[in-house]
Amino acid sequence: MPPAPKTILLSQIASLVGAIAPAGKESIPITGVATLTDAGPSDISFLGSDAFVKQFAQTRAAAVLVQKKVQHLPPPHTAVLTVDDADLAMAKVLELLAEPVPRPAPGVDPLSRVDPSAELGASVAIGPFSVVSKRAKIGAGSIIHSHVFIGEGVTIGQNCEIFPNVTIRERIVIGDRVIINAGSVLGTDGFGYRWDGSKHAKIPQIGTVIIEDDVEIGSCVCIDRAKFSVTRVGAGSKIDNLVQVAHNVTIGPHCIIVGQVGLAGSATLGPGVILGGQVAIRDHITLGAQAIVAACAAVADDVPAGAIVSGVPALPHRQMLREQAAMRRLPDLIVQVRKLQESVNDLVKRLPPP
Amino acid sequence: MPPAPKTILLSQIASLVGAIAPAGKESIPITGVATLTDAGPSDISFLGSDAFVKQFAQTRAAAVLVQKKVQHLPPPHTAVLTVDDADLAMAKVLELLAEPVPRPAPGVDPLSRVDPSAELGASVAIGPFSVVSKRAKIGAGSIIHSHVFIGEGVTIGQNCEIFPNVTIRERIVIGDRVIINAGSVLGTDGFGYRWDGSKHAKIPQIGTVIIEDDVEIGSCVCIDRAKFSVTRVGAGSKIDNLVQVAHNVTIGPHCIIVGQVGLAGSATLGPGVILGGQVAIRDHITLGAQAIVAACAAVADDVPAGAIVSGVPALPHRQMLREQAAMRRLPDLIVQVRKLQESVNDLVKRLPPP
Amino acid sequence: MPPAPKTILLSQIASLVGAIAPAGKESIPITGVATLTDAGPSDISFLGSDAFVKQFAQTRAAAVLVQKKVQHLPPPHTAVLTVDDADLAMAKVLELLAEPVPRPAPGVDPLSRVDPSAELGASVAIGPFSVVSKRAKIGAGSIIHSHVFIGEGVTIGQNCEIFPNVTIRERIVIGDRVIINAGSVLGTDGFGYRWDGSKHAKIPQIGTVIIEDDVEIGSCVCIDRAKFSVTRVGAGSKIDNLVQVAHNVTIGPHCIIVGQVGLAGSATLGPGVILGGQVAIRDHITLGAQAIVAACAAVADDVPAGAIVSGVPALPHRQMLREQAAMRRLPDLIVQVRKLQESVNDLVKRLPPP
Repeated sequence: MPPAPKTILLSQIASLVGAIAPAGKESIPITGVATLTDAGPSDISFLGSDAFVKQFAQTRAAAVLVQKKVQHLPPPHTAVLTVDDADLAMAKVLELLAEPVPRPAPGVDPLSRVDPSAELGASVAIGPFSVVSKRAKIGAGSIIHSHVFIGEGVTIGQNCEIFPNVTIRERIVIGDRVIINAGSVLGTDGFGYRWDGSKHAKIPQIGTVIIEDDVEIGSCVCIDRAKFSVTRVGAGSKIDNLVQVAHNVTIGPHCIIVGQVGLAGSATLGPGVILGGQVAIRDHITLGAQAIVAACAAVADDVPAGAIVSGVPALPHRQMLREQAAMRRLPDLIVQVRKLQESVNDLVKRLPPP
Repeated sequence: MPPAPKTILLSQIASLVGAIAPAGKESIPITGVATLTDAGPSDISFLGSDAFVKQFAQTRAAAVLVQKKVQHLPPPHTAVLTVDDADLAMAKVLELLAEPVPRPAPGVDPLSRVDPSAELGASVAIGPFSVVSKRAKIGAGSIIHSHVFIGEGVTIGQNCEIFPNVTIRERIVIGDRVIINAGSVLGTDGFGYRWDGSKHAKIPQIGTVIIEDDVEIGSCVCIDRAKFSVTRVGAGSKIDNLVQVAHNVTIGPHCIIVGQVGLAGSATLGPGVILGGQVAIRDHITLGAQAIVAACAAVADDVPAGAIVSGVPALPHRQMLREQAAMRRLPDLIVQVRKLQESVNDLVKRLPPP
Repeated sequence: MPPAPKTILLSQIASLVGAIAPAGKESIPITGVATLTDAGPSDISFLGSDAFVKQFAQTRAAAVLVQKKVQHLPPPHTAVLTVDDADLAMAKVLELLAEPVPRPAPGVDPLSRVDPSAELGASVAIGPFSVVSKRAKIGAGSIIHSHVFIGEGVTIGQNCEIFPNVTIRERIVIGDRVIINAGSVLGTDGFGYRWDGSKHAKIPQIGTVIIEDDVEIGSCVCIDRAKFSVTRVGAGSKIDNLVQVAHNVTIGPHCIIVGQVGLAGSATLGPGVILGGQVAIRDHITLGAQAIVAACAAVADDVPAGAIVSGVPALPHRQMLREQAAMRRLPDLIVQVRKLQESVNDLVKRLPPP
């Protein structure tokens, strides 16, 4: 029998988000979260803007978190909790309702392979079919799920979580509270060859990878070993799925890198840079602090701090919008110029020779 | 010694595709399929259009499936099977010649880890080094290859096949006859954070993933867990390799999603949508039934049912073609306008003042 | 205790790169490589052009490899080794300093599963939790790390290295000295379906994959099994991370394919083709020998040998640059044409009727 879902009283939620539960509704049991449209009678939902008041009017939700700024709230038929920031309130409710991630128990699974020279901190859990190689160190409270490979001399900090089928190659250093999701690979040789006259000869990649504290890395992410020195992901940065981080890239602290981004060799991101999905960053490019790159852009030149760029190749976002608008008019412009040419030709004929 | 390849008589193939084997050639043995150029004397090949009659004239194939509509067939030196649809006939021949996929034998491999509380249907096969966690249910006839992680409370239907190194996180629900190819990851937390003033705080992702019946998922595909509610892949949809499906995406039934596509959070695809390779779909976008997105397009706005769009950003395909043609003429247009300006300046000078 | 880093005398490096160590500095110990800016007193660095002489003047490196052509070298305060080609010299130094990759010891790990019918050459190493299936053959000196799946009838040549969490499906053939990095998948069914009136029916993919000698394949790369015949990667080609190679693709020898490239079905690359990051190649397209495709381009037509193309859709690179430059001027062009139109309208009014 599956464990029963968590049940929270509406009054608990109200107190969590700094709202007041309507009188008589304090003990409504809440077991889930859903959109206004999908919610059932044990769900809580949310209304962040006037755009969804119609759905609000028809929701079956037991309760709704409503942003203060919503102006035209119809007479509520459901419990309303008024909050300053519906997104933040929702995040708090999700934290309350979240089931704990199932984890291997502390200790070393008998079906794993942990080298005797490895050092495991207190309460470390090593799941089945995982490998911890010579001289690896894993800090207290870290969880290694099943099917993980941890290479020689790897250092992992405290309270990290490494999901199944992750590969962490030799000598990589990982900070505290780092999450690496399933299927990712850290420490593959950087992609470097030189043509020796008859073949592409491999250039040794003798550097390493450093993942600083509080980083989360998605699934099937590849972070390559530096040619020399370090490929670095700064503290608090978050990387989505299927991202490519080439050798010697430096990602500053608190960056957000959305799915399928590619960072070519030695690219450097300052603090707080945001890259939209499928962005490509050329090798040796620098993006200044808080720069934002729109999804699908290809950045071929340095980007100043705070700039917003988009397009292929990436340009300042306003310029790109102006060019796109112009592009929409180009077919008609060609017609206009043809007619203008005819008018001018005609005028020339009608004028006496100079 | 490797097993001998399958051998099929030409008469069997003829009867399968509704054609007649030429007299005296009924018992030619066929062991493989190849293009007209590559085929050897035990291969069957195919000719679907007049574009390849030259290759037909020179093929060494034992037999050729020829589409009826082919007009200028040279005098055949090989056995010809005339069919209405060469592609369909070829698919049937491939089915006949296909070797069965090697699979772990029914039962639980002694080198796997199956929790006693898991429920396995009749004839389920669990390969070596695979993990089936607490309360997981696997339907009759399903095959779990090696190195697979199946999390707590996961439900897998009947006659599914899960290839090596796949990770299926907790509570995910998978229908019947689903194929998940090697290296894919289902159920990673959606990519959601909020800036709390000093860091990106993780927003819990308490939802799940539902994969409906008859879905095939390629290799190294990532399908994230919903923030709440469900990330869904509809019945009969097919997803190619290295595709990113973010949290709360809804993919309708019978969609085709080609390699390296990225679907951002809460995107919705209607039934029968087709996305070409490397397409990007913005978050919260809806694509109507049977919409088609050309390869490499970036869809930033809703797409109506049946529409064909292309480009970055995506536009109706005809408009995009018109703009591209105009773009090819833009450099010359600039020159033309410069000359036109000179002509007009000249005309202005030649006219008496108004 | 970690092993001490390798230490090399400067005289050894000098002799390796064909330079002369300054008198009295022959026995400086070198333990690492770093940029001019990052280098410490036991590092060697390099200076390849005049652009970095300022950094050279301030470096703390023990020694610097300086390219002959550098013109304005400030008076050196560090040991200088003058070389013809700083990149090549650096590659040699990296080879000297590279630590060996940690590998499983020769033999079969007791926690692996090797079928008795598999044939292993001399000194083959099979790591823990790896599977070698029936009738697989692995050549002498090849290394199979942990968590690798090798399917039935797979052939792997000599001195190959297969990193963790790689899946190699049945019947695939791999040459000598091939490196496959962690998380990659070879031999998934090609993505092929036909609509049978009610659903996408799977077209069997009965072909195989051949990886020729000296290929390196990155991490999380997907190379699909051919529909029939072969998906082929030519000798000496190098494939970066997260690349998609669809069924029946042919990659010639000595190609370079950068991260996140997608090759659609039956695409053909001649020898020495170079594809930049995130490039997309349409199905059934042919790229001639030594063709170069710039990063992020989408190639929809054949590319002649030696051509350089870029853009979406890809065009000859010079044309693309010309169009991009024109595009930057388009918004102003629209304004110019509007004014021109006004001038012409005005002229027409001022002229007597024809």
